[in-house]
Amino acid sequence: MRLLVALGGNALLRRGEPADAATQRRNVEDAAAGLAELAAEHDLVITHGNGPQVGLLALQSESYRDVTPYPLDVLGAESEGMVGHLLELALRNQMPERDIATLLTETVVDPDDPAFTTPTKPIGPVYSGAEATRLRDERGWVMGRDGDRYRRLVPSPEPRAIPELRSLRLLVDAGVLVICAGGGGIPVTVGADGRLRGVEGVVDKDLTAALLARRLDADLLLMLTDVDAVHLGWGTEDDHALREATVDELRAVDFAAGSMGPKVEAACRFVDGTGRTAAIGALGDAGRIVRGEAGTLVRA
Amino acid sequence: MRLLVALGGNALLRRGEPADAATQRRNVEDAAAGLAELAAEHDLVITHGNGPQVGLLALQSESYRDVTPYPLDVLGAESEGMVGHLLELALRNQMPERDIATLLTETVVDPDDPAFTTPTKPIGPVYSGAEATRLRDERGWVMGRDGDRYRRLVPSPEPRAIPELRSLRLLVDAGVLVICAGGGGIPVTVGADGRLRGVEGVVDKDLTAALLARRLDADLLLMLTDVDAVHLGWGTEDDHALREATVDELRAVDFAAGSMGPKVEAACRFVDGTGRTAAIGALGDAGRIVRGEAGTLVRA
Repeated sequence: MRLLVALGGNALLRRGEPADAATQRRNVEDAAAGLAELAAEHDLVITHGNGPQVGLLALQSESYRDVTPYPLDVLGAESEGMVGHLLELALRNQMPERDIATLLTETVVDPDDPAFTTPTKPIGPVYSGAEATRLRDERGWVMGRDGDRYRRLVPSPEPRAIPELRSLRLLVDAGVLVICAGGGGIPVTVGADGRLRGVEGVVDKDLTAALLARRLDADLLLMLTDVDAVHLGWGTEDDHALREATVDELRAVDFAAGSMGPKVEAACRFVDGTGRTAAIGALGDAGRIVRGEAGTLVRA
Repeated sequence: MRLLVALGGNALLRRGEPADAATQRRNVEDAAAGLAELAAEHDLVITHGNGPQVGLLALQSESYRDVTPYPLDVLGAESEGMVGHLLELALRNQMPERDIATLLTETVVDPDDPAFTTPTKPIGPVYSGAEATRLRDERGWVMGRDGDRYRRLVPSPEPRAIPELRSLRLLVDAGVLVICAGGGGIPVTVGADGRLRGVEGVVDKDLTAALLARRLDADLLLMLTDVDAVHLGWGTEDDHALREATVDELRAVDFAAGSMGPKVEAACRFVDGTGRTAAIGALGDAGRIVRGEAGTLVRA
C-alpha cells in the first residue's frame, strides 16, 4: 500500500520540552523507528507539523536588531528544511538501503480566503495580557486567548494546489520515501499581476496531507498524534474512543475545539474524495493502526 | 546541454545590503531572469551559497534565551529551505510552465577531515577584537582576522558523497529544473557506530557543485559570482581577465586568497574528472558565458 503519513508536532517536540536541536533529534529518532516498521511493508510519503519550529524561528527573527522580521512563508520554508533534515537523517539511519528525499513544498492558497481576515491558528509561545497588548499595538499581531494567557493567531488558509506535484509523483512512483509539505506547505498565492508570492500564514498540515493523499493516490491517509484515537465526549464521563466511524457519523459531531477538528475534517475529505480509508491515532501505535488493531478508522 | 549552475552569495545578498527577506526577494528575481534565459535552451541544476543566511540564522539562534543554540547542520538545513523557496518562487514566476523542485541535500564528509581541527570558513558578521575574545572564551568559537576586525571561522570539510543522488537524477532526467545542495549541502558524517549525524561545519558550495556536476553528468559547470572572470595579477598593474585557461595553467597560480580559490579548484576538479568545460564569471553575463562570449572558460 501507499501510505500518506501526517506526523503531529509531538513527533519532534512534546509539550513542555525545550525546543533545542538535541531534544528534537532524540524524539525524531523514536518516531523514525516506528516509521521504519511501516516502511518495511509499504510505500511512505511523510508530512509533518511545524508549529513549535515556526514559532521559535519567528521569535529569533524578531530578536535580530538590524533586520526586519522575516515573513511566515520564509520561516515556514526554514522549518521545512530543519525538520526535513532531522527526519531524513533519522530515517536513513533506520533504513540505510532506502532512498529517502525531502522535497521543499509550496501550497497555493486563495488570496481571498476568509482566513486572511480572521486569523485562527496559534503559533509561538504564550504571553501575558500586558505582553499581548504590546505585541498587538507594536506589530499589528492578532492575539487570541489560550486559557488565561494569549498567543499570536495567524491566518490558516485552505490548501488548493501543490506546484511540486509532478516531482513528488516522480519520486514516489520510483519507490523513494518522500518527506514533503512540512507545516502544511509554504503558503503562496497568485496576486492580481498573475505572479506567485509568499503570504503570511500557516496552512493546516492535516488538510494539506488530505489534498496530497488524493493527488498522490494514497491508499491510506494516516494521521499520527499524541492521542490514541478520536474520542467522543472527550473529558466527560461518557468519554470513549471510536474504533471505526463513517464520514457521516463524524460530520455530525463538533470537534472544532482542540486539534482533533482539522484531523477529522482531513479524514472526511480524503474518504469522501476517494472512497478509501483514513486513520487517526497515536504515533507509537502506527503499525497497529495500519493493521486495524488501534486508532480510529474512517470509512465511507 | 545540462548545466550545473552554482550561484554565488551575491545572487541573494550583496555586500552591505540589509539581510531582510524583501532585499533577498528582489535580488533573487534579478538572478531568476538570467537563469530563465539559460533554462530556455538548457537543462539546469542550480546550487547556491548560504554564507550570509547561515550567519544570520546563527545569530538569531544565539539570541533566543531559553534554547541552546542550534548546530550548523540544522542552520544549514534551514538556509536550504529559505533560499530554495525564494529561488523556486522567482524561477516559477519566470517560467510558469516549467517543473521546478528544491531537494533538501545532505553532503557526507569524512569525520577525520583536517578541516575539523583547522576551521577556515568565515561566517556571520564582523566583530571587534574585544568581542572576538569574548566569543572565543564564552562559546569556544575559533575567530579569524578579517582586515582589522574578526569573524567566526568554522570547519569546511571536503564533500565526499550526496545521499540524495538517485532522487536528484530521477528529477533531472525527467526534465525538472532542480535546486539543490544549497550552502554546499548539509554536512553529515558517519560516526564510529556507523550512524549518520550532522556536524558543525559549512561545506564549500563550489566544491560540492563540482562533485554534483560529475555525478549528474553535467556538460558544463558554471560558477556565477560578482566578478567578470578569473583575473591574474588581481589589483596590480598587470591585472587582466583570463578568457580561457587550462587546468595546468590554473594549478600553477595561487588563488588561495579571496573567494576565487575554491572556484578555480572546483573548475579544475570537474574538468580533470570529465574532460568537459567549467566556466567562471558574472551572474549578469550568464547567457554570454555559456555562449563563450564572456567569463573564463576552463578546459582540459
